[in-house]
Amino acid sequence: MRRIAILAEGKLNWQDAKTAVGVLRYSSDTVVAVVDSTTSGQDAAVALGNPDGPGKGVPVVESVAAALDYAPDTLMIGIAPIGGRLPEPWRAEVLHAIHGGLNIVSGLHFFLADDPEIAAAARECGIQIWDVRRPADDIAMRIREDLPHRASSHVVYFCGTDCNVGKMTAAIEFDREARRLGLSSTLAATGQTGIMIEGSGIPADRIISDFLPGGVEALVLPRTEDYDWTFVEGQGSLIHPAYSAVTLGLIHGAAPDLMVLCHLAGRTHIRQYSVPIPSLSRMKEIYEQAAGWLKPAPVVAIALNTYTLPEAEALAAIAAAEAETGLPTDDPVRFGAGRLIRALVEATKHTVS
Amino acid sequence: MRRIAILAEGKLNWQDAKTAVGVLRYSSDTVVAVVDSTTSGQDAAVALGNPDGPGKGVPVVESVAAALDYAPDTLMIGIAPIGGRLPEPWRAEVLHAIHGGLNIVSGLHFFLADDPEIAAAARECGIQIWDVRRPADDIAMRIREDLPHRASSHVVYFCGTDCNVGKMTAAIEFDREARRLGLSSTLAATGQTGIMIEGSGIPADRIISDFLPGGVEALVLPRTEDYDWTFVEGQGSLIHPAYSAVTLGLIHGAAPDLMVLCHLAGRTHIRQYSVPIPSLSRMKEIYEQAAGWLKPAPVVAIALNTYTLPEAEALAAIAAAEAETGLPTDDPVRFGAGRLIRALVEATKHTVS
Repeated sequence: MRRIAILAEGKLNWQDAKTAVGVLRYSSDTVVAVVDSTTSGQDAAVALGNPDGPGKGVPVVESVAAALDYAPDTLMIGIAPIGGRLPEPWRAEVLHAIHGGLNIVSGLHFFLADDPEIAAAARECGIQIWDVRRPADDIAMRIREDLPHRASSHVVYFCGTDCNVGKMTAAIEFDREARRLGLSSTLAATGQTGIMIEGSGIPADRIISDFLPGGVEALVLPRTEDYDWTFVEGQGSLIHPAYSAVTLGLIHGAAPDLMVLCHLAGRTHIRQYSVPIPSLSRMKEIYEQAAGWLKPAPVVAIALNTYTLPEAEALAAIAAAEAETGLPTDDPVRFGAGRLIRALVEATKHTVS
Repeated sequence: MRRIAILAEGKLNWQDAKTAVGVLRYSSDTVVAVVDSTTSGQDAAVALGNPDGPGKGVPVVESVAAALDYAPDTLMIGIAPIGGRLPEPWRAEVLHAIHGGLNIVSGLHFFLADDPEIAAAARECGIQIWDVRRPADDIAMRIREDLPHRASSHVVYFCGTDCNVGKMTAAIEFDREARRLGLSSTLAATGQTGIMIEGSGIPADRIISDFLPGGVEALVLPRTEDYDWTFVEGQGSLIHPAYSAVTLGLIHGAAPDLMVLCHLAGRTHIRQYSVPIPSLSRMKEIYEQAAGWLKPAPVVAIALNTYTLPEAEALAAIAAAEAETGLPTDDPVRFGAGRLIRALVEATKHTVS
């Protein structure tokens, strides 16, 4: 059990601080403070816009120096900015943490351990740097072999209309609820936040293109031996102008039997791009096309992220998505994943896996 | 103009020595010898199975030591094995070349310049190592921006049913024939052999997944400013169990206006996998699905590689592909690319690009 301070300077909002929100909500470690000078003095949950949500009771402080009062043993970089680089103003904060004796956990594309100044400080202070996005040697250059999954195991891929719509969150909620229901279930984490929460996984978007499906296969295949249900955290979107290749590598690497489509209610365009998001029915069709080139996998449920909506509107959005797609739809964070898991179990009765 | 010895030990056949064949056929450099102890003493064209084909007049010798008699200034690694690693027996040959004063050009995933023994020898002997597959700094971590191409420029993507079916060769033949016809045309090389031949390009399959489409955009976009026609070398196949993600990254990164489907006559399954290759009509549909998620791009011609067939069978295979798909089909190496280029020009009259 670590005691974590999360660095989220200037970015402590729901969209930018995806890693912070995920760790606050799901990590078995203790988050002792969040660093953001623009919201310091608030409760982290309040700063994130939901006083009863993730971060309740966790103080926001103005600097790493202030966070040290809460006796953390680890500083975690709590954002995943487009491009993945360390914002320059954060360098001093990271160095301050290292000199304070904190280990560093980072999900940035830019590896902190490869930075000469940061690496030298780490050596000097005897602390560890975990660059979560660095692929492990055994999967960094592995070619996919197209090996079959154990018969009667079920692999579920969480596909999305866009980045940051709740794919990881949905996969975690499904896995936890499945285990509560007594199913043999595991999460296959594929992004930096999922890996930080789960303690294992692969940094899919950081793997060299030629080896991405091979890395995903190495992640999923042993889980299908040990568990009946493997819930695979998805990445990106097949209609994302920058990240669609990562998405396809995950789908063809994981070779799912079933898919769950994740969407953020109200989002109409790919974030930071002008690409319109088509209807959920069309997105279902797109994902089934791509999976079907190698192995058919129907989309059998919709996970609708309604966190921006009041409850009545959330229920209406869920009903509208059900009416449009004909698929069971729910918000697994808000209303639980139980109903959608029953839909998955039902689908396995009609699907050869 | 370099004087090149190509190392292809034990692999001097059409399928394994893809890089050697491409360089022998298209490079403006001079190939002075090919190293392969299993076929030494032969003419390289004879060893490759076509006495009048690429390699005619180039001697095959048993070792790098023997190749030095032909006064090369460069040793080129002439294979692209699955997995991309340097076969261990070749290490001594590479070191022999370095000690003989030869520069080294390699397209392997395994970077020779990162190998301590090879790097030390290179420093000692003052020679250069060009690891063609190492992404340049300016594209190694570039996120795709989804920038529009110049209006009235045409980007053509060469898609394939599989690896090693002739996508690069077709793209080169189209580019050269287009220029002979007086069109403003360029090749966008995306693989190690294409880069070696063209002297520029990006090693698509070696780029980190998150940055692949951004690298492709950086390759293609400036070419659309300077040329009317950009022929983009394709990689892999959307139905390839290991490399489909690379393929989609190229398509969405290049944002083509038109596509040419490449196939090796007679190949029925993905090489080294048990995945059957569907009909050409189905492959056309698959590629048009994937492009169409972001920007529609019809497949308007088929480049059929008939090198394994006698001429009468080649003509019959071309006629059969035309009858099945309704698309103009030809073997651009054997019969020229002129007819298919006319089909592209015609298609631009019906397509908004």
